[in-house]
Amino acid sequence: MSDSSLLNQLMEALQCMPGIGPKSAQRIAVNLLERRRDRAKHLAKILARAMDEIKHCDLCRTFTEKNICQLCANTHREPNLLCVVESPMDVLAIESTGTYRGLYFVLLGKISPLDGIGPQELKLSDLDRRLKSDQVQEVILAINPTLEGEATSLYLTQMIKAAGKKVSRIAYGIPFGGELEFVDSHTLEHAFGTRQWV
Amino acid sequence: MSDSSLLNQLMEALQCMPGIGPKSAQRIAVNLLERRRDRAKHLAKILARAMDEIKHCDLCRTFTEKNICQLCANTHREPNLLCVVESPMDVLAIESTGTYRGLYFVLLGKISPLDGIGPQELKLSDLDRRLKSDQVQEVILAINPTLEGEATSLYLTQMIKAAGKKVSRIAYGIPFGGELEFVDSHTLEHAFGTRQWV
Repeated sequence: MSDSSLLNQLMEALQCMPGIGPKSAQRIAVNLLERRRDRAKHLAKILARAMDEIKHCDLCRTFTEKNICQLCANTHREPNLLCVVESPMDVLAIESTGTYRGLYFVLLGKISPLDGIGPQELKLSDLDRRLKSDQVQEVILAINPTLEGEATSLYLTQMIKAAGKKVSRIAYGIPFGGELEFVDSHTLEHAFGTRQWV
Repeated sequence: MSDSSLLNQLMEALQCMPGIGPKSAQRIAVNLLERRRDRAKHLAKILARAMDEIKHCDLCRTFTEKNICQLCANTHREPNLLCVVESPMDVLAIESTGTYRGLYFVLLGKISPLDGIGPQELKLSDLDRRLKSDQVQEVILAINPTLEGEATSLYLTQMIKAAGKKVSRIAYGIPFGGELEFVDSHTLEHAFGTRQWV
């Protein structure tokens, strides 16, 4: 089959998705053609619309097709509580727990001096403005505990304290269902250091 | 995030692809929005076109957007050799080896009396016509060795012999890189029964 056939173009194009290599692309293409043409056409339509229309929320910077996302616009959320995360994916993960009732601020990155990403590049002034003008009383940092994540958390902690607001970080430790012997030593050490009295 | 948001619609629509569940759909959606909007728009275009335009080759019944696929139209292929496979996926797999130089016939299924699929439903008359009128001298059956595949191979063997053409089946046995201890006993038994003198 020559490279210019439409089927080949489709298998090529499908590989723009993370985790989809040549084999998966082939399986997906044939499966859609054999059995799910209508659903695939629907996907094509939604995909085109999403790439054109979805942008960042003016307030929290998560993905939305509106100016203000549904979370920020929801008056039932607690406006005095703000959770800072790295990416829109983290918002989805936290929302899936169904327990957090406050608002969000999405960094869209983290402080990484080696990559030339500092507070300016992350536009942390947006967060500062929100801290100062808003009803926000308490900030929860839910940032991945990587090297850059730690630097980011440290910077944000100082910034939030300077604005006179309370700040906490989510707990890091052994995940439920995790097994001690498979957890890295840094996590284990941290879990001992932050043990809770019962 | 409410169910009606465009991001949610996208994550839902992505799950029409085999092997893509809610978690992968989320990862793909966010990744495309964050970094690959242009490639995703291209995918949307190709996907819509493919679902509308790709049909089955009039001769071999594999997928193509033309009346006759590029393989059947290729005059450098050996017209006296025909390989019978179940699905267009098998054509892609065999073509990727780069060694087979004949033509194909795609069954688009297999004989399965329990599902009400017999020779009529598979339109095997198309194959019969081709065997009788064509330059085909030799047929290679490359059909998955499942229960239905075996029944199909048996039926086809009789049909091809009745048309006075030579017929062979590809070899079944231990795959290269496979380990004897992990191969099922049926395959192992077959591999012993069809051992080759060296």
